Amino acid sequence: MAKKPTVSNDGAQHQMPKKDGIKTNFEMLEPIGKLMNPILVEGLPGIGFVGKLAAEHIVDELKAKKVATLYSNHFPHQVLINKDGTIKMLANEVYVYRDPGKKNDLILLVGDVQPTSSVAQYEVMNIILNFFADTGGKRIITLGGYGVGKLVEKPRVFGAVTSKKDIEAYRKHGVSFGEVEGSIIGAAGMLLGLGRLKGMNGICLMGETHGNYIDHKSAQRVIDVLSSIAGIKINTEKLGKKAKESEGVIRKLEEELAKGEVGPPMEMPKKKEELSYIR
Amino acid sequence: MAKKPTVSNDGAQHQMPKKDGIKTNFEMLEPIGKLMNPILVEGLPGIGFVGKLAAEHIVDELKAKKVATLYSNHFPHQVLINKDGTIKMLANEVYVYRDPGKKNDLILLVGDVQPTSSVAQYEVMNIILNFFADTGGKRIITLGGYGVGKLVEKPRVFGAVTSKKDIEAYRKHGVSFGEVEGSIIGAAGMLLGLGRLKGMNGICLMGETHGNYIDHKSAQRVIDVLSSIAGIKINTEKLGKKAKESEGVIRKLEEELAKGEVGPPMEMPKKKEELSYIR
Amino acid sequence: MAKKPTVSNDGAQHQMPKKDGIKTNFEMLEPIGKLMNPILVEGLPGIGFVGKLAAEHIVDELKAKKVATLYSNHFPHQVLINKDGTIKMLANEVYVYRDPGKKNDLILLVGDVQPTSSVAQYEVMNIILNFFADTGGKRIITLGGYGVGKLVEKPRVFGAVTSKKDIEAYRKHGVSFGEVEGSIIGAAGMLLGLGRLKGMNGICLMGETHGNYIDHKSAQRVIDVLSSIAGIKINTEKLGKKAKESEGVIRKLEEELAKGEVGPPMEMPKKKEELSYIR
Amino acid sequence: MAKKPTVSNDGAQHQMPKKDGIKTNFEMLEPIGKLMNPILVEGLPGIGFVGKLAAEHIVDELKAKKVATLYSNHFPHQVLINKDGTIKMLANEVYVYRDPGKKNDLILLVGDVQPTSSVAQYEVMNIILNFFADTGGKRIITLGGYGVGKLVEKPRVFGAVTSKKDIEAYRKHGVSFGEVEGSIIGAAGMLLGLGRLKGMNGICLMGETHGNYIDHKSAQRVIDVLSSIAGIKINTEKLGKKAKESEGVIRKLEEELAKGEVGPPMEMPKKKEELSYIR
Repeated sequence: MAKKPTVSNDGAQHQMPKKDGIKTNFEMLEPIGKLMNPILVEGLPGIGFVGKLAAEHIVDELKAKKVATLYSNHFPHQVLINKDGTIKMLANEVYVYRDPGKKNDLILLVGDVQPTSSVAQYEVMNIILNFFADTGGKRIITLGGYGVGKLVEKPRVFGAVTSKKDIEAYRKHGVSFGEVEGSIIGAAGMLLGLGRLKGMNGICLMGETHGNYIDHKSAQRVIDVLSSIAGIKINTEKLGKKAKESEGVIRKLEEELAKGEVGPPMEMPKKKEELSYIR
Repeated sequence: MAKKPTVSNDGAQHQMPKKDGIKTNFEMLEPIGKLMNPILVEGLPGIGFVGKLAAEHIVDELKAKKVATLYSNHFPHQVLINKDGTIKMLANEVYVYRDPGKKNDLILLVGDVQPTSSVAQYEVMNIILNFFADTGGKRIITLGGYGVGKLVEKPRVFGAVTSKKDIEAYRKHGVSFGEVEGSIIGAAGMLLGLGRLKGMNGICLMGETHGNYIDHKSAQRVIDVLSSIAGIKINTEKLGKKAKESEGVIRKLEEELAKGEVGPPMEMPKKKEELSYIR
Repeated sequence: MAKKPTVSNDGAQHQMPKKDGIKTNFEMLEPIGKLMNPILVEGLPGIGFVGKLAAEHIVDELKAKKVATLYSNHFPHQVLINKDGTIKMLANEVYVYRDPGKKNDLILLVGDVQPTSSVAQYEVMNIILNFFADTGGKRIITLGGYGVGKLVEKPRVFGAVTSKKDIEAYRKHGVSFGEVEGSIIGAAGMLLGLGRLKGMNGICLMGETHGNYIDHKSAQRVIDVLSSIAGIKINTEKLGKKAKESEGVIRKLEEELAKGEVGPPMEMPKKKEELSYIR
Repeated sequence: MAKKPTVSNDGAQHQMPKKDGIKTNFEMLEPIGKLMNPILVEGLPGIGFVGKLAAEHIVDELKAKKVATLYSNHFPHQVLINKDGTIKMLANEVYVYRDPGKKNDLILLVGDVQPTSSVAQYEVMNIILNFFADTGGKRIITLGGYGVGKLVEKPRVFGAVTSKKDIEAYRKHGVSFGEVEGSIIGAAGMLLGLGRLKGMNGICLMGETHGNYIDHKSAQRVIDVLSSIAGIKINTEKLGKKAKESEGVIRKLEEELAKGEVGPPMEMPKKKEELSYIR
């Protein structure tokens, strides 16, 4: 019934499925039929932007196809100004990648923001999961960063799973377990928690990262692991190049921070010791 | 069915459309029939009060007619004390100006406050837009300030549009593009974002301003541009006079601020470099 | 249908009107029939506790009768510990005083707290006003404090009215007008604003007060004015006695504050100059 | 109709009672029939984790049986990372202990978190109380800590009751009255306040504690009192052992705090004098 809106930059022909349907417009996610062993891959903004960088890179490299744009009255009430002078409403987007190798199709959830409250997180993630279930999906891989408060030469990829029996299999793909504690905040955690209640399995891949900087290298490592798990080759050269470029900038910011000239650009996670104590 | 309330200062004969209808009383916006190429002009409180000053000045100069007063349980729970000892409930007001030149009628949205949450912004702006659509409206011009953190001799007017193809036309009216980044918070952004989803076009005109001070000069410049776009002559002499008067006050405040005696009177926007980094 | 709950200290025989009715239990306000020119007098916690002190003193002195206890899921989620070891759920209470002099019956709204959000303020105050309207009420007097940031020898009583034409009459009862600006936050303002939309008239009486201290003297002055307006004699000796007692304590706190040993016990209102500037 | 979900660590076979039922899934609390003089015992996270430690210890020692897992979209939107690499969704759990001594069956409410808003506290606690009422329950014992801001050699157990006439009976079980003031925030207070409105009686047992540290010794004392009240023997050796173990850690933290190296690990309650002044 509802028509999928097509939001392009020229502003013409945009339609809302319902006249006042903003509140419920996550429902514009239309069934896309059954997929081949689909995996839901989430990469929304979070620590070090690791998950967002990784998921958006995958979308670009695999030329995944956008199937839905999601708006929510639980996203911040602002629009972004693009460099070309146009505006962009805050949104999440869903992409589909149909694997020619017939191993695992991917549903990718990316976007500008996460819902800002618990009620909204539950509501939005539930709609995503129901949409995913309709494609026959049972496996979720969420992507994020794990802040360690210092620059890391070779970032590890930490895992947290819904199902203990899966740990050994994931280790073989390069995931580290048992080295992190605390909690996973936002979509990366909620999709797993809510997904498990719906009979799904999943893992959160957390790239080790400083926590204060956008980290392309950590995103690169996360993709390597995901690529191995899903059996889909994904070229990460571009991320590697950006990682090199940003090294100089980060070093400069670290120095300024040490001199107390600027505050940290992103909120830092608590240290492991503190977290385990608080709990 | 519902009768439009008339809120005057004498307190007599005020009516609410529904006994407990506060929550939904934005619905009191009654159709006013079709207008001539109407433009929705928004000027609610924001950075430097540029949008509010400009829109209220237009209402006064053009002697626009009030057609609705809007209350919301999402406005702050307080009333203003007027200088004459009366109170004023926080409200938004809608005015209509019927252009004798038959070019563009105007619907003007002004008021004391903006809705304070995302849910409320989506709800209220949707109601405004539906009301506007009923008049045949397709074009939105929102007014605001763009804080640059310093006093500006000749404020520019920056633009952000829903539709890239409109940029060149707006340049001819004196709008600058491609020089600002970040986001447009509140009604000025939401009306454009939501409007586009309804098939409308629009622009946000942002007057360059310090960001810490009420800026009549910047409002004057914004009106000049709007006047050119809409083809409606609007006298801005009074604003120019006030701009001159406040120059002395602002200089004094700047000095106090520099000496650390007072905090900034309004929250300052992040600098361009920070914003582009964060994003 | 719903039975009025009687909440005494012995914990026996408490009933809720509806099994899960907490959210709407303001509805437990049952009609009490028509009253004689009733005045709604509100005195909930606020600046200097002036309104609360005044209204509770009136309840005690006039031996007004409790007609309803109001709970709300918009009150803070906590219970008070009484000195005798019992708990008290946060509530508002409504009292009725039937004037033997046949001039003005009073409906008094007192309590531990105010609703904590705009949505809740609109909801709760609307229910109070509808209840008041059912008694035939048309006149509202809300009580509060107006913080001036310094100790005041002879506190004035400032007024803010719904209706300009009433100002002269109120002046004769000792109310000062035109000397304050800013806004009236919470029930004292909302009852007037919403009441006016229902065709009621009213005034907010604001006792001049430091703003950092519980101020019995200011409450005493507010009662004097209210007493004159309503034509009801109210003895304020007890308040005067307490005012004397607390003078020493306040002086001590002021000294500690000056020495930077403690923070201000209550949030201070902005100074007049700042408020008028911000607006 | 709704099936009780079984959330184990292996992730298999988890079911939600309703497809989108997260918002209302507290309703999954199914009747468990009548119990023998049941007491509702609550121990959710709070000051010093005294209540949580005590209630979870009772569950373990008495081998109480889990009858429900509760999720809420009013819990924080995050999942915990367990040491074994699995995730745990934030939840409350309800356990039942059927007393072989035929004195008092226990319903125990434990969990990771408390609802984070007033509206949610009212909603959730009401559901718990209705569930409890269905078992024939009339008596509530909530467990918590009372922070005194210093290390305590022999923690007292303070009481706050719904019913003044019960005080003397509780004193005989070792509860201290009349020595604390202020308010009881969260479930420990709300269950008593809302329970009283439903005709129930109850007490909050507050173990004296520093307030900055997890306090096993205080939890041990609270259990001793509860054990005496309910006439159920509960071994607290394990808590005693942990109390000894943590003494060294706490001393170290106190020293660091004194040196200003770390902030307090938990928010400290206001001192008695301040609280009584504020009220």
